[in-house]
Amino acid sequence: MTENYLADVQITPRAGILDPVGETIASALGNLGYEDVRSVRAGRLIRLEIAAETAQDAQTAVESMCEELIANPIIEDYLVTVRDVEK
Amino acid sequence: MTENYLADVQITPRAGILDPVGETIASALGNLGYEDVRSVRAGRLIRLEIAAETAQDAQTAVESMCEELIANPIIEDYLVTVRDVEK
Repeated sequence: MTENYLADVQITPRAGILDPVGETIASALGNLGYEDVRSVRAGRLIRLEIAAETAQDAQTAVESMCEELIANPIIEDYLVTVRDVEK
Repeated sequence: MTENYLADVQITPRAGILDPVGETIASALGNLGYEDVRSVRAGRLIRLEIAAETAQDAQTAVESMCEELIANPIIEDYLVTVRDVEK
């Protein structure tokens, strides 16, 4: 029997990869007077609802989706966290 | 004296707001054979390093940045979490 799980995928540019969006936000924050900002990195957050037998099965499936489609492992790091829908 | 904090801003489309990127990912995952995916929402993850006297000060500053620049509160929800750089 399957349950529904929520999976959050946090995708961030790998260290050393240029991040023009993050740099633009950092520069705009400086112009607005936020002088305490040291750095900004811009990534993506993909939230999936998925049916699976166990949380571990959901985790494995979503990691496979990341490798195949959601993330670009050459330039991005990703972190998958899974929780029950109810929680 | 200030310390450096890491702030993660999770930005997601508000309920009811169209999310064409999420729908495209969901459809592509279906085409790849991932039939257990119930829904996909595509958001953004902005990671800032910021100097502040306390974690609470960092939190307040980043929430103000979200209202002013980082997020669009009309169509997006955002959640700020702050932690020490060392942790």
